[in-house]
Amino acid sequence: MDDYSYETTVDVRLRDIDFMGHVNNATYATYLEQAREDFFRDVLDISLVETDTVLVHLEIEYASPIEADDTVTVALRVPKLGDSSIPIEYEIRANGSQAASAHTVQVLADPDTGGSRSIPSAWRTRIERHG
Amino acid sequence: MDDYSYETTVDVRLRDIDFMGHVNNATYATYLEQAREDFFRDVLDISLVETDTVLVHLEIEYASPIEADDTVTVALRVPKLGDSSIPIEYEIRANGSQAASAHTVQVLADPDTGGSRSIPSAWRTRIERHG
Amino acid sequence: MDDYSYETTVDVRLRDIDFMGHVNNATYATYLEQAREDFFRDVLDISLVETDTVLVHLEIEYASPIEADDTVTVALRVPKLGDSSIPIEYEIRANGSQAASAHTVQVLADPDTGGSRSIPSAWRTRIERHG
Amino acid sequence: MDDYSYETTVDVRLRDIDFMGHVNNATYATYLEQAREDFFRDVLDISLVETDTVLVHLEIEYASPIEADDTVTVALRVPKLGDSSIPIEYEIRANGSQAASAHTVQVLADPDTGGSRSIPSAWRTRIERHG
Repeated sequence: MDDYSYETTVDVRLRDIDFMGHVNNATYATYLEQAREDFFRDVLDISLVETDTVLVHLEIEYASPIEADDTVTVALRVPKLGDSSIPIEYEIRANGSQAASAHTVQVLADPDTGGSRSIPSAWRTRIERHG
Repeated sequence: MDDYSYETTVDVRLRDIDFMGHVNNATYATYLEQAREDFFRDVLDISLVETDTVLVHLEIEYASPIEADDTVTVALRVPKLGDSSIPIEYEIRANGSQAASAHTVQVLADPDTGGSRSIPSAWRTRIERHG
Repeated sequence: MDDYSYETTVDVRLRDIDFMGHVNNATYATYLEQAREDFFRDVLDISLVETDTVLVHLEIEYASPIEADDTVTVALRVPKLGDSSIPIEYEIRANGSQAASAHTVQVLADPDTGGSRSIPSAWRTRIERHG
Repeated sequence: MDDYSYETTVDVRLRDIDFMGHVNNATYATYLEQAREDFFRDVLDISLVETDTVLVHLEIEYASPIEADDTVTVALRVPKLGDSSIPIEYEIRANGSQAASAHTVQVLADPDTGGSRSIPSAWRTRIERHG
């Protein structure tokens, strides 16, 4: 886990494989989304479905291809919460080796105003303790 | 088209919509992939399937959500070819307005050595003329 | 069009191709869903998103593989509306030739009771005229 | 497991959820494909990727919606092998209850002739013992 504070497992599906014979590049973003969902459930006891977080930034460095029968995990950490933004750094691992590193930023939206809103302090406490 | 040299249309599918009610964040990466395919077909008269290009970097800034009935285009340009790398800058547009900006880097692989190889000069000429 | 009363176009995406090198079998179901969406928009001036139709049956006979650069259309007809069910027969065509035939049944749900409800007569009239 | 001889687990992803708020109908076909992959690996010690099986028939009866946080399994059995065809019956279960039943037929292709070929006797023995 190195300096990543959370790690979750991804089941690679045959459907994740593309015309190149490896996991498709866009599917890495799906793995990251699922890792966020797992993190939110485990640490905040809430599903992304129930939050109003909006992804505003996504960045992936692809290091090596992922094969259909690889054992894949996503490790992540939350470097420093903003007022309304949640930055996350990831490492996608195949059989224990780095397959990609990634970075996302989510913003907590205010569904009434359409703008952003501050991260609840209960979330902040739990994320800072765990993430 | 502004200073983008190529533009292609994406048909949004109902399946692109996710639990948030908008086009899923990972699907933007699929739109970019399809724009690359269209660009390669139109400019190089070749499919990505027939090349040995590997995506090494992906970056997306999400500006506004895309709805199921939006008319979506992807504009792109190739800022400056490397020896073996093809950087592309994109703008994803929904009903003519920017929905996201993006940046990718592909590397041309040498299937024999597993390393990279130089972009063929015929490609270079066509891309620099068009991209 | 033969005896199919409606036909719509599908843009094949590179991401539709799977580990076998052809359009994935599950993606055919996505093509059918998009054809239903197009049919609902064109004939009923409504999106599936705004209806409470639930898919209860899906059947596909795969006749020949679809390639990434094929021109794909979906032709469909509505054989006979039930009280609350909408049966649809399809032919998926690649470059004009049959790639698959399919059959689905949707049921109009009553969101209040959780049961089914009768198809509105305005829908019935339009579908019978067009479908 | 009732009279199903094999059962495997599916990790529902948030991306499986569609505009209706439930697992998308086409994704059920992906769950079936993954169950076939797991079955082939466990019983025949081979991946679908290494075989030349072609899906020719798919049929799904949807019984109840699957939610993002459901625990999903796919149970299956092989009723009776043909000479070159592999019929499979499935039950997709969410939290132990039937969410769908399904039926597929795969045919073993002969890559040289483009026609079908007989199921190897080693496969036949293992499938009949286990499936």
